[in-house]
Amino acid sequence: MSQIELHPDRLLPTEPSLRGIARRLYDEVAGLPIISPHGHVDPAILANDAPFGDPANLLVVPDHYVTRLLHAHGVRLDDLGVPPGNPVGDTSAREIWRTFCAHFWAFRGTPSRYWLESELVDVFGVSLRPSSETADELFDQLTERLADPGFRPRALYERFNLEVLATTDDPASHLADHQRLTEDPAWKGRVVPTFRPDAYLDPSRSDWAQQVAKLGEAAGIDTKTYDGYIAALEQRRAYFAQHGATASDHGHADAGSTPLDPADASRIFSAGLAGAATADEQTAFRRHMLSEMARMACDDGLVMQLHPGVFRNHHSSTFDRFGADVGCDIPVVAEYTQALRPLLERYGTHPNFRMVLFTTDEDVYSREIAPLAGFYPSVFVGAPWWFIDTPDAILRFRAAVTDTVGFHKTAGFVDDTRAYCSIPVRHDMARRLDAGFLARLVAEHRLPEDEAAETARDLAYQLPASTFRLT
Amino acid sequence: MSQIELHPDRLLPTEPSLRGIARRLYDEVAGLPIISPHGHVDPAILANDAPFGDPANLLVVPDHYVTRLLHAHGVRLDDLGVPPGNPVGDTSAREIWRTFCAHFWAFRGTPSRYWLESELVDVFGVSLRPSSETADELFDQLTERLADPGFRPRALYERFNLEVLATTDDPASHLADHQRLTEDPAWKGRVVPTFRPDAYLDPSRSDWAQQVAKLGEAAGIDTKTYDGYIAALEQRRAYFAQHGATASDHGHADAGSTPLDPADASRIFSAGLAGAATADEQTAFRRHMLSEMARMACDDGLVMQLHPGVFRNHHSSTFDRFGADVGCDIPVVAEYTQALRPLLERYGTHPNFRMVLFTTDEDVYSREIAPLAGFYPSVFVGAPWWFIDTPDAILRFRAAVTDTVGFHKTAGFVDDTRAYCSIPVRHDMARRLDAGFLARLVAEHRLPEDEAAETARDLAYQLPASTFRLT
Amino acid sequence: MSQIELHPDRLLPTEPSLRGIARRLYDEVAGLPIISPHGHVDPAILANDAPFGDPANLLVVPDHYVTRLLHAHGVRLDDLGVPPGNPVGDTSAREIWRTFCAHFWAFRGTPSRYWLESELVDVFGVSLRPSSETADELFDQLTERLADPGFRPRALYERFNLEVLATTDDPASHLADHQRLTEDPAWKGRVVPTFRPDAYLDPSRSDWAQQVAKLGEAAGIDTKTYDGYIAALEQRRAYFAQHGATASDHGHADAGSTPLDPADASRIFSAGLAGAATADEQTAFRRHMLSEMARMACDDGLVMQLHPGVFRNHHSSTFDRFGADVGCDIPVVAEYTQALRPLLERYGTHPNFRMVLFTTDEDVYSREIAPLAGFYPSVFVGAPWWFIDTPDAILRFRAAVTDTVGFHKTAGFVDDTRAYCSIPVRHDMARRLDAGFLARLVAEHRLPEDEAAETARDLAYQLPASTFRLT
Repeated sequence: MSQIELHPDRLLPTEPSLRGIARRLYDEVAGLPIISPHGHVDPAILANDAPFGDPANLLVVPDHYVTRLLHAHGVRLDDLGVPPGNPVGDTSAREIWRTFCAHFWAFRGTPSRYWLESELVDVFGVSLRPSSETADELFDQLTERLADPGFRPRALYERFNLEVLATTDDPASHLADHQRLTEDPAWKGRVVPTFRPDAYLDPSRSDWAQQVAKLGEAAGIDTKTYDGYIAALEQRRAYFAQHGATASDHGHADAGSTPLDPADASRIFSAGLAGAATADEQTAFRRHMLSEMARMACDDGLVMQLHPGVFRNHHSSTFDRFGADVGCDIPVVAEYTQALRPLLERYGTHPNFRMVLFTTDEDVYSREIAPLAGFYPSVFVGAPWWFIDTPDAILRFRAAVTDTVGFHKTAGFVDDTRAYCSIPVRHDMARRLDAGFLARLVAEHRLPEDEAAETARDLAYQLPASTFRLT
Repeated sequence: MSQIELHPDRLLPTEPSLRGIARRLYDEVAGLPIISPHGHVDPAILANDAPFGDPANLLVVPDHYVTRLLHAHGVRLDDLGVPPGNPVGDTSAREIWRTFCAHFWAFRGTPSRYWLESELVDVFGVSLRPSSETADELFDQLTERLADPGFRPRALYERFNLEVLATTDDPASHLADHQRLTEDPAWKGRVVPTFRPDAYLDPSRSDWAQQVAKLGEAAGIDTKTYDGYIAALEQRRAYFAQHGATASDHGHADAGSTPLDPADASRIFSAGLAGAATADEQTAFRRHMLSEMARMACDDGLVMQLHPGVFRNHHSSTFDRFGADVGCDIPVVAEYTQALRPLLERYGTHPNFRMVLFTTDEDVYSREIAPLAGFYPSVFVGAPWWFIDTPDAILRFRAAVTDTVGFHKTAGFVDDTRAYCSIPVRHDMARRLDAGFLARLVAEHRLPEDEAAETARDLAYQLPASTFRLT
Repeated sequence: MSQIELHPDRLLPTEPSLRGIARRLYDEVAGLPIISPHGHVDPAILANDAPFGDPANLLVVPDHYVTRLLHAHGVRLDDLGVPPGNPVGDTSAREIWRTFCAHFWAFRGTPSRYWLESELVDVFGVSLRPSSETADELFDQLTERLADPGFRPRALYERFNLEVLATTDDPASHLADHQRLTEDPAWKGRVVPTFRPDAYLDPSRSDWAQQVAKLGEAAGIDTKTYDGYIAALEQRRAYFAQHGATASDHGHADAGSTPLDPADASRIFSAGLAGAATADEQTAFRRHMLSEMARMACDDGLVMQLHPGVFRNHHSSTFDRFGADVGCDIPVVAEYTQALRPLLERYGTHPNFRMVLFTTDEDVYSREIAPLAGFYPSVFVGAPWWFIDTPDAILRFRAAVTDTVGFHKTAGFVDDTRAYCSIPVRHDMARRLDAGFLARLVAEHRLPEDEAAETARDLAYQLPASTFRLT
């Protein structure tokens, strides 16, 4: 069928009695404002409020969920305009769009298809299903929509019913776009930065010394010494907090958190700057710095998000040619119980500390994350992330963690997206799935429907707001 | 809603045709006697038959499923009367109960809530749902019930339709409470001890030398030599068997089972007593002793239960203040195929050997445990345990193992509880879930209903009885 | 019930609206020809076209899914005629059959039971359910059928609607049976060999030097040097390709693929032949050779199937007495992201390279295999294999991978069987399960039914044909 039809009961359970309950629960939350506490939207989009470009550069080029699967089916990344903003090939937007549409069959059953179809209908009001036949007409229809002032970022912010949107930012950033928004009397929304210091904490990076120098410059503190480096990080965290940040984000290779004693830390720091640290020392320093981030979080209250366990840039020649974030990151096994113990021994019951654990290794949910969040007041269960941010995996996640921690130590849905226009459909998806999960508990007589309804509202709105200290 | 209603179809599948079959299968087993081959009830409860204390000290304080989640939501363990019998704080029972009731929302979707609600209605005949509003009235109602002779332990034993209850006991114990029961002409039930020697097998424990001395004292054998130590363990196993034990239980950090040659074992034993064994030697000795336990089991027929893979006392300052078993144990990854090979090479096909494997790492069910139990006559699949002893995880467990080993190499449900009053509702939960799982096989035309009914009875009664040699 | 009834809706979802959709999708594919790109049927069966022997030696003795579970229930392998063709005991076929039938209850809920019942009815036209009571009558009925020319292998090939059947073959084989089939004008089918070189690539095998010599003999190339060894492998791959092979198959202990530099490879090769290689060198060489196989695959186009992660012959005394493949292989944890990186760095985007990844460790599907296949054009997701080649695990597999890679990077169903008569029922099972999975996507409004129907046909027919280059 060439027309997309969005059924009102999509993603809800199919058994009629379950679906009835799920529909009622979904109706409770469908219209709630969106709290987006973790994502990768560029704040300049909202600061500038310029029209989005063409459909390909909006919906295909920057979405590595899409480009990776096209690449898996033999499409060259050169022909997809990757990387965004600095394309390696010289393919026109219309050609990219045609390639995407011609491969739309490859997305059957994936959340990318679900999100894209929902966006086309709900956000852009077009209903042609992408295919070789419809590619050009769809390109033209979308181009027309994007030229309309009603499709500018700020107008969409209102239409999406966004209440707060967190971005992810470089600690050396002066957050100029955030500041422009705050100072703009016409802007009524709320966009907050997130402190993402990975590049400054990992001496194994080839550019680490430059990063540390850049950090010092931003902070106005000499970072040639370990003490200066620590002070600069503290200064930048404070700067971010002053500019509205409520959280930091950490994407290390693993969750190791063993602290070093200060003399060792200082020695490895200097060796690292000089390019003389061994691989083991680099790893030890990175883990030490995770512990340091937790220590600072006890002081400044930034909620610590941990996203470990993804092998970045698995295919070197793709990385060398196209850069990071084009789809060749692959998860590895995760381990939290032992890795986080040093950190939790120190800060796990600190009243001001809070940590949200994410994983792409599903086995960890029932085995480690739920038990950790079910004991430590500081630990919260993060929503399924990246590869498992999908209808079936979200239901598996709820089934895996609820038995051990219930609902109220889970952090609420995070969209984790750089695709601004997909935000409402992603949150809507999560609300539908949680309604379906709760409906089963009601139908199995494990939870009264009034408590399920309250829980649905908590999951959709209260928990992301309170967990990420956004209230 | 402030009234708890226990629906007769709770936990059964919701699709009407499935539910009809499941209901018929459940009706086959709902009234069968309870075999409880593994748990942690104190035998003194039945030997003394004293009235239970107040509701808080019966239902909250000793249940670390409950106290851990309250702690995760910021309640201090000091305010919960933990540890049982020797509370660190000075909170009254009524205050503890109020705190619990005020946080009852935190248990939505958890088996703790399911068990507690079922106990309140089915065991105690009260139906107020715990909340701040109902806390005092509920406390009073329960206190009144607990004063009634019909709620004493032995009366409940009859009402619960318990046929046999296994406790978990220290090898140095003289099993006085078991003996009092056996010698009491008024007692018609059956309570059997279980040999749990962990503390005597692990030289890494700081109190190991004292433990070994205590063992020698109990056995009347000098345990200063390795040979004496082995003889003392054999003597205690025999003593337990004479007093009705049919099983041992082992909770090591991992399932390693490589034997040492006797000279090495003897040497490490002496070093261990002297506090001079290295960490590697301590681990090697502990694994050797698992193999020794299997060797002894071939002789004395005690069924060997293995519960590895939980990191005990993850948060040291909680352990230092409140002791063990207050909720800060966290699972780690499990491995059986390689770890158990040395043991199974030796004893895996011995006609008298039997081993029941438990895990808290679900991935192991289809990958390792089911394949092992599907080849070795001695190996049985243990029921989901601890963090995964829950409605959804039990169904995942059946789906993970049945394909490879069917039903009759699974050991039947074990409640693994120290909460005496939760025993009937836990077994009832398992019977409902197995009925639901079997109903799906019937509805998918994979098993005729008469065979499903027979299997339901086997799972509920025959298999725990026969696997644990309790018939 | 003593009569087997095969319900037309078996294995389809039970919810009526889902079942209706699933039934329509299944009807689309039920009659499609069978592509069997990976299995272990002996080609001599078809070359000779002799009548099958008795029911026990056809359905019990060679099926290690069956003998392992009987062994797990205490039946001695001696009493089951194991190993096939060279039985250790002297039990008659009728006695073996009686033992099997008397234990048929042990297979409740297993795919073995499902396959056997389907075979009895659909292939052999008998409907007695195996039991002690029916054993003799069933044995006689089946013996009569097997004497009928309509039940000879070639007649069944036609009846099974097989289009192509891949066998698994020793690289030293001259493929005489395949040649006889090709040259037989009466034979209209297609049986292709598969290159399975494990025994030649692993210097840790005690017979490795003999294997390498045998390889040289088959190739007519001196394999005393590393260069000769490599040339001989290339020659045998070419020989296989000339005789119709389109794939190789690799069953190593792990997926490690780090290449050695040629001097090291040559040195370890010589040490290995002399029995002087260390265990680490043996492992390094085996991993190097996996990389070499990939290099050769870029040239000759043989599709590389990888089946790692099973600990073979876990119980040595069983292996010593009965040989390999009698049921004592046990899976271990799998890891692909890091293990395959060296290989994929080199060949992952080579236009002629293709690799199908299998696992028995389910956690790897969403964590590693789907993400790898969702980026590398060369990587395809293999069907669930061995212990997880079962109704529930196949549905878990689809739910685990579809979100990340959709359907069209999965390789289609492989039966992986040595039980010739089970081939149609295994493929039928997969078609029913895929129909059920797709039906849920339709009912949840995630996929229009016309696209689901096309996808069902792709999964059943197009994808195995195209992925394994059998078109």
